[in-house]
Amino acid sequence: MLGKMLENVREKHPLIHNITNYVTVNDCANILLACGGSPIMSDDINEVEEITTICSGLNINIGTLNSNTIKSMMAAGKKANELGHPVLLDPVGAGASGLRTDTACELVKEIKFDVIRGNISEIKTLAGASAATSGVDADEADAVTEDSLESVINLAKSFSARTGTVIAVTGAIDIVADSSKAFVIRNGNPMMSRITGTGCMLSAMTAAYIAANPDNFTEAAAASVCAMGACGELAFERLSERDGNSTYRSYIIDEIYNLTPEKLENSAKYEIK
Amino acid sequence: MLGKMLENVREKHPLIHNITNYVTVNDCANILLACGGSPIMSDDINEVEEITTICSGLNINIGTLNSNTIKSMMAAGKKANELGHPVLLDPVGAGASGLRTDTACELVKEIKFDVIRGNISEIKTLAGASAATSGVDADEADAVTEDSLESVINLAKSFSARTGTVIAVTGAIDIVADSSKAFVIRNGNPMMSRITGTGCMLSAMTAAYIAANPDNFTEAAAASVCAMGACGELAFERLSERDGNSTYRSYIIDEIYNLTPEKLENSAKYEIK
Amino acid sequence: MLGKMLENVREKHPLIHNITNYVTVNDCANILLACGGSPIMSDDINEVEEITTICSGLNINIGTLNSNTIKSMMAAGKKANELGHPVLLDPVGAGASGLRTDTACELVKEIKFDVIRGNISEIKTLAGASAATSGVDADEADAVTEDSLESVINLAKSFSARTGTVIAVTGAIDIVADSSKAFVIRNGNPMMSRITGTGCMLSAMTAAYIAANPDNFTEAAAASVCAMGACGELAFERLSERDGNSTYRSYIIDEIYNLTPEKLENSAKYEIK
Repeated sequence: MLGKMLENVREKHPLIHNITNYVTVNDCANILLACGGSPIMSDDINEVEEITTICSGLNINIGTLNSNTIKSMMAAGKKANELGHPVLLDPVGAGASGLRTDTACELVKEIKFDVIRGNISEIKTLAGASAATSGVDADEADAVTEDSLESVINLAKSFSARTGTVIAVTGAIDIVADSSKAFVIRNGNPMMSRITGTGCMLSAMTAAYIAANPDNFTEAAAASVCAMGACGELAFERLSERDGNSTYRSYIIDEIYNLTPEKLENSAKYEIK
Repeated sequence: MLGKMLENVREKHPLIHNITNYVTVNDCANILLACGGSPIMSDDINEVEEITTICSGLNINIGTLNSNTIKSMMAAGKKANELGHPVLLDPVGAGASGLRTDTACELVKEIKFDVIRGNISEIKTLAGASAATSGVDADEADAVTEDSLESVINLAKSFSARTGTVIAVTGAIDIVADSSKAFVIRNGNPMMSRITGTGCMLSAMTAAYIAANPDNFTEAAAASVCAMGACGELAFERLSERDGNSTYRSYIIDEIYNLTPEKLENSAKYEIK
Repeated sequence: MLGKMLENVREKHPLIHNITNYVTVNDCANILLACGGSPIMSDDINEVEEITTICSGLNINIGTLNSNTIKSMMAAGKKANELGHPVLLDPVGAGASGLRTDTACELVKEIKFDVIRGNISEIKTLAGASAATSGVDADEADAVTEDSLESVINLAKSFSARTGTVIAVTGAIDIVADSSKAFVIRNGNPMMSRITGTGCMLSAMTAAYIAANPDNFTEAAAASVCAMGACGELAFERLSERDGNSTYRSYIIDEIYNLTPEKLENSAKYEIK
């Protein structure tokens, strides 16, 4: 089933509109091309609605947000909603500043997202802020471990139930949840956290996966998360003693480029809860 | 002859002012260094004229244009014209949004470009918009094939005749034309389209080639296009089974770094029509 | 001693706030992760003070400055001063435009920097402008050679004495000076100048070194400069005949990733004057 999701990306070549940060934007463009999609980056208010219109999916990433791009995110997101295009949010750094938290919450309020992908701190910030009475405690240990797994799954499912959005929480263990089920994914390698932009890249790629699989957002997002983790493992195996995080970054994109539906099926490590 | 163009880049180390997008800007800087030039990136209205003045060429790329950078492009382009510095336009996405089409057309109207480099859709958009009576039909198949080759050559030559600009149309077959002759170039590899920024990189490098060969813009642009395609071939040969588009990108820049005038002469595949 | 500086970076994982250019920002983030630090990039006036507050060091780089980011640099720098966080300035292109020179001088006037790292032209511009009577002559040959070494050391020491800032002048020979002593460092490889961003990367990494060694800015900066040069040498040894500046860039970051305190101690080539 996950393999089919990738197959659809390769067949449909979805064009993805990215309003994203300038730190990892090149890697996002290259991973979109690697997975079978196609990138357009555009953040000026005078064209974002038009650009979104010619695309089949929108990826909003607040990594280096500013007052101009926030307006563009809002306008593009609303337009994509209007057109029924899949939209993904990567709330980079929500919780780290008031501007990021407020912007992410405002975006979630005004735009219907199909997937939100973030680390556990970002997701907790969003879930808590948009429903303070749900009791999500910012003081909980942030890392998703076997101990905290159950509570994070519940958090993701209930956040999804409230918003109608697939919630992807990525870290040592990844969770992709809708209101009724959660993929618990155990792919990946700890060294991925030593590369800038693995999260951003995953978000961009996930936008392509959901754009190519509009009837199956949960499975599409899970397939993308498994693909990233599996390629992180495969790329790690290729590293020689003198390679470091820069070569590792290239190898991960290379593995995404060479990933087949079969390889994805065989290397995905997940259970459904 | 093409080799001599490269030789001049390596000897003169032209400093190129780039007003370019934030997606591929790092690759543009590295390919400029690889070919023998030197990059400066600057897009603030309060310094672009001054920066252009200390450079020997200007590369304007509208890939992630915004209202601030559009003003800077205009100001820098006019200053470069005033100083007689070679200027190149990369009209990224002209045709994809009104803002891009209008900006590209406005730039072409206000600034005398020495080279415009784009894909066939971008060039058609520009050629049609700047002379609607020329009958260039946006409905024509976009890909440059052996069948459409003749008509694209004619389009490029007549656009060049009207504007005094060398027109570089790049794709599966590349055409570099002035009003009287066209280089038809058959270097390159299809995998180059799976890397973000091969077009942007080529534009940046071409700005260095024309800056170092101010009396010979057509040949200089043709040499740069051949160099990019030839290095795309050489880099492709180096790829192992597990390499993908990320390693390919690095290898292309590496080949540009190691390209010699002799290698360029020997690997260039072109005819003049 | 230099090894201890690196050890502290690896132990403390300092989070560094970067207000930096969009050309080399990805490499800056990856080298921060490679050395043991952690990057945040943020340049909007509505969050920079808050972001600086949660970090343990600030890296200001004026490489693609604009009117918005200049305000953010000023606000973040003042906040960092208030909090006693180490602050570094990379005055990219000071001297190349009035805007850059004025901005760099204004920043130095308003903010207490702990380290300023630049090439000799940038440092001379800053030193001269902030004290025109010191007689620093912009007409002096710019390259730091064995002949000019003495005068550059004196310039750096006296600039440091006036400002209380450690001055790092990097080039063929690197100098890291406070008012009383100067590290003269002879690591590195000429090919490093064919990569964009070696200076920016060094500045970002140095911000991590000083953040992790707040009681020892001079030695921390010297350790970072030695680390960059040594890794430039080690990476150069790895290059095969067909590698160029792109692979070299990756290998340098990889070597920083794999650098140990012992390797740094053994490969650092410096004398104290």
